[in-house]
Amino acid sequence: MEKIDHIGIAVVDLKQAIAKYEKVLDRLCYKTESVISENVKTAFLRIGESKIELLEAMDKNGPIADFLARRGEGVHHIAYEVIDIYSEIERFKAQGFRVLNDKPRKGADNKLVCFIHPKDCHGVLTELVQSIK
Amino acid sequence: MEKIDHIGIAVVDLKQAIAKYEKVLDRLCYKTESVISENVKTAFLRIGESKIELLEAMDKNGPIADFLARRGEGVHHIAYEVIDIYSEIERFKAQGFRVLNDKPRKGADNKLVCFIHPKDCHGVLTELVQSIK
Repeated sequence: MEKIDHIGIAVVDLKQAIAKYEKVLDRLCYKTESVISENVKTAFLRIGESKIELLEAMDKNGPIADFLARRGEGVHHIAYEVIDIYSEIERFKAQGFRVLNDKPRKGADNKLVCFIHPKDCHGVLTELVQSIK
Repeated sequence: MEKIDHIGIAVVDLKQAIAKYEKVLDRLCYKTESVISENVKTAFLRIGESKIELLEAMDKNGPIADFLARRGEGVHHIAYEVIDIYSEIERFKAQGFRVLNDKPRKGADNKLVCFIHPKDCHGVLTELVQSIK
């Protein structure tokens, strides 16, 4: 585990949220990206070695739409950068964590990603991310 | 805004949460601290330039007890390091954010802290922290 790669925040309106977080962080959003497989539009802002990822559901289906319906806007997940996601998945499994993806898959921002069950992390959906070289 | 100083996670049982996050982050908790004014016990683990702060309510009163009763365990706040908390408070106020502390106060980990209303940050309780020199 190298660092916090990003914090994902579920929002209702991405455009409004970008404008707001540009004020909070006092800098501009540097990228937006749609992830069709997750049915989300994302926007990224840098903060130190980490990023804030804003997440808007494309319609009323998918994990972000479900989260917003259930809990409203707020922190959706914490993502940690790892060097070798395959060995990290094995490390988590060996310690009894429920890994939600048996194999890492392609996420936003050109990364391999894998999620750990929030119930195993005290209510926090936890993501492992490895940069694709 | 320099970096993510820490992410605060509200937990029911600090001892269990420390053991769990030592596994998640693959390193040891380096400090525990009680903040009497907030009625919380805290524990810190480093991750890159940031920290994870675990927060347990000392009894059934106070902000963490309220949060746990309302939402259960999970991310309670995101804290950003700032160089000059007084000028940052003025910057936020000038942009229409509701600042929850008119003057910064002493928080955990030897910091001056100030909170911004979660409704002004898309559901995220946002903390500004400045190290006390």
